Amino acid sequence: MIKLGVLISGSGTNLQAIFDSIEKKTLDAEVAVVISNKAEAVGLERAKKAAVPTHFVDHKKFADRASFDSAVVDVLRDHKVDWVVLAGFMRIVTPMLLDSFPNRVVNIHPSLLPAFPGAHAHRDAIAYGVKISGCTVHLVDAGTDTGPILAQAVVPVSEGDDEASLAQKVLYVEHQLLPRVLQQAAEGRISVEPGKDGERARVRIRA
Amino acid sequence: MIKLGVLISGSGTNLQAIFDSIEKKTLDAEVAVVISNKAEAVGLERAKKAAVPTHFVDHKKFADRASFDSAVVDVLRDHKVDWVVLAGFMRIVTPMLLDSFPNRVVNIHPSLLPAFPGAHAHRDAIAYGVKISGCTVHLVDAGTDTGPILAQAVVPVSEGDDEASLAQKVLYVEHQLLPRVLQQAAEGRISVEPGKDGERARVRIRA
Repeated sequence: MIKLGVLISGSGTNLQAIFDSIEKKTLDAEVAVVISNKAEAVGLERAKKAAVPTHFVDHKKFADRASFDSAVVDVLRDHKVDWVVLAGFMRIVTPMLLDSFPNRVVNIHPSLLPAFPGAHAHRDAIAYGVKISGCTVHLVDAGTDTGPILAQAVVPVSEGDDEASLAQKVLYVEHQLLPRVLQQAAEGRISVEPGKDGERARVRIRA
Repeated sequence: MIKLGVLISGSGTNLQAIFDSIEKKTLDAEVAVVISNKAEAVGLERAKKAAVPTHFVDHKKFADRASFDSAVVDVLRDHKVDWVVLAGFMRIVTPMLLDSFPNRVVNIHPSLLPAFPGAHAHRDAIAYGVKISGCTVHLVDAGTDTGPILAQAVVPVSEGDDEASLAQKVLYVEHQLLPRVLQQAAEGRISVEPGKDGERARVRIRA
């Protein structure tokens, strides 16, 4: 069993997928705390319904990213978190947070990285005209959506798809993929080999 | 029925897939001519076995890309080609060729574009550590692997995969995807809408 700290900014549907998987006993984890940088994030309500402690940490009250992250790390440590999950958390995290949970910060991004990083993945995918998109669960590193990939899942893009319909399709597979990867973490199957000679770090997931 | 001109540089396994689909009558096309820029390309033997005219056009004998392309266009026109297929053709084509067959030059690339363009798609995909790769059939434009996408297909990347094993897996889906797209071309279902206001051109494939 691992303790998760989940960081959100919005509706928290991936947080809900985590709660649902825990309830179905397909994910052997406990959400120890949910932190939002937005007071009105619907995900905070989901957490309260699940009787999980919530914290609103207002990024506007901090002088810089690192001091905001420092406050977040304090909350995560108070709740003895093992793994940190960025689930629609719309802030860039700093080495302050990453170094506190080395190779234990996971993000879910709504594209097949390295294609379409950044905050407008679906818009960019539709504009490019790809026929396949999907989502990526990866370890977070200092870059934006650049960290070692843990898992990916695909969806077909249809002629009639727009940003909204693609987002909906991809969310469906996000909700399946993220709990599956977290279960691999819970089973202690994820390890990271540092990159040699300028190569990227590599993830190993033991069978 | 459409007449194809197929450009190759090597073994021509995608050319073989085209021949096989024509024989199985799942592709209503005729390969009118196969052109190689390499005299020793195995694909030329495949063409001869299929009783298809072949031409070796030695790019080293031309002063520049455009004059090489001009010679290629002459051969394609002599054989009344409707669509041009780059099937492992390792030369960058110029506007000379593209303007002669507007929106009728198709390339197959062994990655899910826009990820991993260029000549080392599999090596780059393995180095990045993606869990999903695949192939892309697209119309050729003036960029390298940047043209409007017609179709994509995926393969899973396993922990043990290297450049060679990934190439083999992706080739398998290439051989299915390319003839399928060419059949859409044969049925006159492919149209291109030019991009407005700096947007990319868009492909429509009618049902």
